Order: sequence, then C-alpha cells, then structure tokens
Amino acid sequence: MVGITIKHRSGKARRGVLHTPHGDVQTPVFMPVGTAATVKGVTPDQLAATGSKMILANTYHLMLRPGAETVAALGGVHRMLNWDGPMLTDSGGYQVFSLAHLRKMSDEAVTFQSHIDGSKQVLSPEIAVDIQRALGADVMMQLDECPPGDATEDQVREAVVRSAAWAQRCKTQWLQGDCDAQALFGIQQGGVFVHMRAESAKRLVDLDLPGYAIGGLSVGEGHDPMVAVLDHIDEQLPIDKPRYLMGVGEPRDLLAAVLRGVDMFDCVLPTRNGRNASAFTWHGRVKVRNAQWARSTEPLDANCSCYCCSNYSRGTLRHLFNAGEMLGPTLVSIHNLYFFAEFMEAIRTAIESDELDAMAPRWLDQIYG
Amino acid sequence: MVGITIKHRSGKARRGVLHTPHGDVQTPVFMPVGTAATVKGVTPDQLAATGSKMILANTYHLMLRPGAETVAALGGVHRMLNWDGPMLTDSGGYQVFSLAHLRKMSDEAVTFQSHIDGSKQVLSPEIAVDIQRALGADVMMQLDECPPGDATEDQVREAVVRSAAWAQRCKTQWLQGDCDAQALFGIQQGGVFVHMRAESAKRLVDLDLPGYAIGGLSVGEGHDPMVAVLDHIDEQLPIDKPRYLMGVGEPRDLLAAVLRGVDMFDCVLPTRNGRNASAFTWHGRVKVRNAQWARSTEPLDANCSCYCCSNYSRGTLRHLFNAGEMLGPTLVSIHNLYFFAEFMEAIRTAIESDELDAMAPRWLDQIYG
Repeated sequence: MVGITIKHRSGKARRGVLHTPHGDVQTPVFMPVGTAATVKGVTPDQLAATGSKMILANTYHLMLRPGAETVAALGGVHRMLNWDGPMLTDSGGYQVFSLAHLRKMSDEAVTFQSHIDGSKQVLSPEIAVDIQRALGADVMMQLDECPPGDATEDQVREAVVRSAAWAQRCKTQWLQGDCDAQALFGIQQGGVFVHMRAESAKRLVDLDLPGYAIGGLSVGEGHDPMVAVLDHIDEQLPIDKPRYLMGVGEPRDLLAAVLRGVDMFDCVLPTRNGRNASAFTWHGRVKVRNAQWARSTEPLDANCSCYCCSNYSRGTLRHLFNAGEMLGPTLVSIHNLYFFAEFMEAIRTAIESDELDAMAPRWLDQIYG
Repeated sequence: MVGITIKHRSGKARRGVLHTPHGDVQTPVFMPVGTAATVKGVTPDQLAATGSKMILANTYHLMLRPGAETVAALGGVHRMLNWDGPMLTDSGGYQVFSLAHLRKMSDEAVTFQSHIDGSKQVLSPEIAVDIQRALGADVMMQLDECPPGDATEDQVREAVVRSAAWAQRCKTQWLQGDCDAQALFGIQQGGVFVHMRAESAKRLVDLDLPGYAIGGLSVGEGHDPMVAVLDHIDEQLPIDKPRYLMGVGEPRDLLAAVLRGVDMFDCVLPTRNGRNASAFTWHGRVKVRNAQWARSTEPLDANCSCYCCSNYSRGTLRHLFNAGEMLGPTLVSIHNLYFFAEFMEAIRTAIESDELDAMAPRWLDQIYG
C-alpha cells in the first residue's frame, strides 16, 4: 500500500517517507527515468550505487515495444528492469502528445499511430490502467490531457474537465484490481492559471486518491510561471498525500518546488545530459567535450564520490566521448545520477534542520553563478 | 619483469603463470581488447567481474586519438583505462595495414594518413617503441609487417626479413629504457609457409626477447592452414618464453592453438559480437534478436553465472536490442567476456589433469554442433 508519512515540515517544505510495496523512500525524492525498461546507459547495480531509490518507466514506450502483454510475460517491469525497488509508471498520455502521430482526441479515448511502426493504438483511462497493471509498478498514473505551455484558457479548461473525468474512470478501473499492490495517482492540470489549478485540484481531491501529481508544467512555460503555480499547491493538495511534480529535474526547479511543498520528481535530465557530455556539479555544468579538458587529470567534481569521479579524469572522459565509446555516456550518466541523489539528500537534510530557506540561494549561486 | 613459469605440460599444451609488473596471470589466457582506452561497452569493474585478468590496448588508435603524449599526460594507459592489472599494447602495425590510408612502406618506416582526421603519420620500429613506452603497458610489441592471408611467398619472405630487422631495431630502442617495467615481444611472420615461419622464428629467437608472438594468422587463411602453421610452433619457439597468438578468439581456434603450445590470445570477438547481439555459449551461438526469444524468460545460458545470465532473460535482452538501448550491448558483452574467461579456465583445468585432448572434441561438438 502506498502512502506518505511526513516527518517534518519546514515552511511548506516536507521531509517524509514514501511507503510502497517495494520499500520505503525518503522524500523529497528524485526518480530517474527508465524509458524502455532501462535507465539509459547504466545497469541497475550502477543505478543503485548512485543512491537512486525509486525510478519511473514509460508506459507509452513499453506498450508499443515490446507491448504490455510481453512485459507481463517477461515478469513485469520490475523484472525486466531488474529493479527490486519502488517504481512508478506514467500513463502514456504525455508521450502520446509529444511523440505519436495522427492523434485523435475524444472524451472517450485518444487514438494515435505509434511513432515506431505506425500501428494504430488506443489509449483510454481504462486501457491506461489495464496496461499499467500489466506492467506492475508500485504507482500508476491516471490518463490525463496535457495541453502545451502556450495553451489558451479555454483549451486549459477543457483539459482540466476531461482530465478530471478520466481520473474518475481510472479510479473505477483501478478499484477492480489489487489496490494495495499498485496505487493510482491523479494528475492536476490547469496550465499557468491559478484558478484552473484550484478547480482541477478540487475535482481530484474529491476522488480521494492515494497521491496527486502536478502535471502540465515544464512544458515551455518557463521558471517563473511554474513557480507562480507551485506557490498555491500546498493549499490546493491534501497535506497527507504524496505530491509529485512531473517531468521536472533542473536543480533550480527542484529547489523551488520543494520549498513549496512537493515530494517527488522525475526527469530524463541526468541521463540525457550524461549522454551529451554535460555534467551537473555543485559548481555548475561541465561540458566534457571542451578542448580545455584534453589533458586535465581532475575529476568532474573533486568533492564527488561517484564511480566516475573516483576513477576518471576529465581528460579521459573527453577522450571517450571523442572516440565515440559507450563508456563516456555511461560514466557521465552515473555522475549525473549521483549528483541528483546527493542534491536531494542535501535538500532533505536542510529541511530537517530548517535551513533550506537559507541554503537554497547559496546553492543556486554556486550552481548557476 | 615479464616472464612465464610453465607449471605443467600435457602434450604440447602448457599450463603456466605469466609474471608482469601488474601481477601474475594464469595461462593459457585470453585478453579482451580495449581499443581506445576502454574495453567497449563495459566498465573495468564489470570487466574484472567477468574473470578477465589481462587486457590489450591498441597503439594505433591511441597514437591518433588522443595521442601518445596526451595519454602520458593523463597518467598512461593503465590510468586511462582504470585498469590495475596486466596490460599489453600492440605496435600499431596491424591497424596501419587494415585501417590507415595512403600507406607507404620502406625498410626505414611506414608512413600513412590517419583514418580519423587524414593527418600524416610515421611509424618506425623506434617510434613504435617510444609510443608504447609513453602508453606504459606491461608488454610492448615490436613493429612488424603483416602481409595479407593470400600473400605470395615472395611477399611473405620480404615481410619476414623486414620484420626481423625491425625486431632488432625495436630491441635496441627498448634496451635504452626500463626493460623491467615493460617487456618487448617479437612477432613471427611467415604466412602459411612453414619454412618461412621457421626462418622468422630463428631470426627472432636469436634476439633473445622476453616473449614471442605468432602474427600474420587469422587474416583470412582459414582454420586448417592456421593449424598447419601452429603444428610447428612448439619446436620453433623457445619452451621457456610466453607465446602469444595475435588476433585469435574463435573458440575452435583457441583450442587448436592451446593444444599446440600457445599461452596467450587476444580478440575483439566477445565485445564485437556482444554489440551485435550474438552470444557465445557452451551450446553454440545465441542470436539475441531472434523473434523466437520475444517472450523467453530463460537466460542466455542456464548454467552461466555472469551478471547478464543472473539477472536478464532472453526476452528482455531482445527488447533492449530492439529498442536500441545501450544496456543490451553492455549485457551481452559482459556475458561473452565471462564465457571466454570461463572457457580458458576450463582449458587450464583440463591441461592440469591431462584431459584437454579428450575434452576438446567434446567441447567442439557442443559449441559447433
């Protein structure tokens, strides 16, 4: 059974423990993304060694390839990922909007063509729950409609109404299965319109779901409009349920959201940037391909204890990227995942000692100069 | 200081220990290839966990990128590879013949254009030793001329004479450095002509080098002509020096060579095939992409204890390759490296109990059906 115990509040920031069938997770937590049954470029052993505790898998990718039935036949997404810890699946809705072709939307369902093989697919609230049940993660997400960052208020209102109706249908479908084995989270929409956010939250909270996500952010609206929305979530969402801000990973955004009461995050940033030779550090981004590192014997971060920084110099990493060796992306992904886990741990410690308000501007200064 | 202690002979097969400045290695040994300062697709931790004990790095690749001086500035090839165990570098000669452009050969040196950036390069026996000294591996190889598998006897004779002269020049250059820190091996040429092989060996043995390689095989001549050459190496090469068959990795060839007195091998086969979804097992090759494995929950080899077989099904591996995930090549490379290490261990055990003659046909039957 999934739930959160809040151990300490500091301002709006929450220091808690998320309980799942696959174990407890200290919150606030950052979840690396394992798109297609692997967090890209790393083994689960390497992932665990970075301090990552809970991961996300993408329903859209897995339903198209290898297919939900095949995932189930192979033992579920935990087994395929060889990950025994907590896991969450998204509903597939977001990728339908960002990746699929020939999308057709109705109140009943969304139909689309697979971006992989052009096959016709249908995703309804009921199907999204059934697929996620076959995948078998600890937390399932409702199917929602996520309008673009520049959507009009009318478009946003339509998405709020439809998403709330879909949340109800997802709940009905979810209640027919083993609700303790897999939780269902609702997703707040409402774009950058605070009153629509409140409306969306109210409709979801009435459903009394095990957790609530904040969706429809980090879709191009920018940092300040995102923060303006987050300013209100502590009053909009119940105090005793986990709160998950979807798709957010930039350290600046993580800090702003934690300070406003968010518990969970996911983003591809650590691994995507890792593959692109861009390393996160406490003193800003390191572009590994930069010629200035050709003969540098320094690690990415002298104070970092990750496998990459313990064993590899910037010069060697640069060489590995220049030579097109897989080890380069693997090592910088490991470093970035470690940075995110360490960053969240620092955040948790700062909440416990009521110092996050003081630390946040210092960290932002260090990281973004 | 590099040398071999032969602990047991069974027919011509030798069970020994190769001593190097970075530790002892049980022989016969298979060395995975770390072309450009990494064994492709795996970390050194993963590599060590496969049971691999000694690896090879390619001088040609490293001299072109990042360059020998940069390798030295970054602490040498052991440091770059993050590998504390024994290591060997080839001379670069073989890749000059297989990869470089606009090659010009003289008794003095070979000039060529880099296949990476077109830059003009020179490799002489002296330069090959100097570069390998900068790289810093335990064993350096002489620069030699490796004619193609279909070379005429005249071409082969020329290569034998030139390679012997270059061995002498490499030795002179080698003697000016720290000979205990890095050994120099000579390379026998002679194509498939047994008398030329004898002539080549005699010229090398006169130089009294720490070890001898058998070059110019596995270049398209086929299994039987290779074996016909290997039939004579036990009488051609000194009993008390390590013998290294270059570029050979097919299990069938490894067995034939060990039975004829070879101690060391290297090949890209485990990692190249790993990246191509082709797995070595004791019961033949498994083509991981094959549709028949789509829902298979079996590992590649039910009797294998590698990280891949302990944690991943054929169905999941097939999915990872189909999805283009790096983890697929990494996992099958790990499995293949483990297979090669285990195969060599079985060979060593069989030599110790004088059973290799009996086991070899059984293994070949299993593996090649």
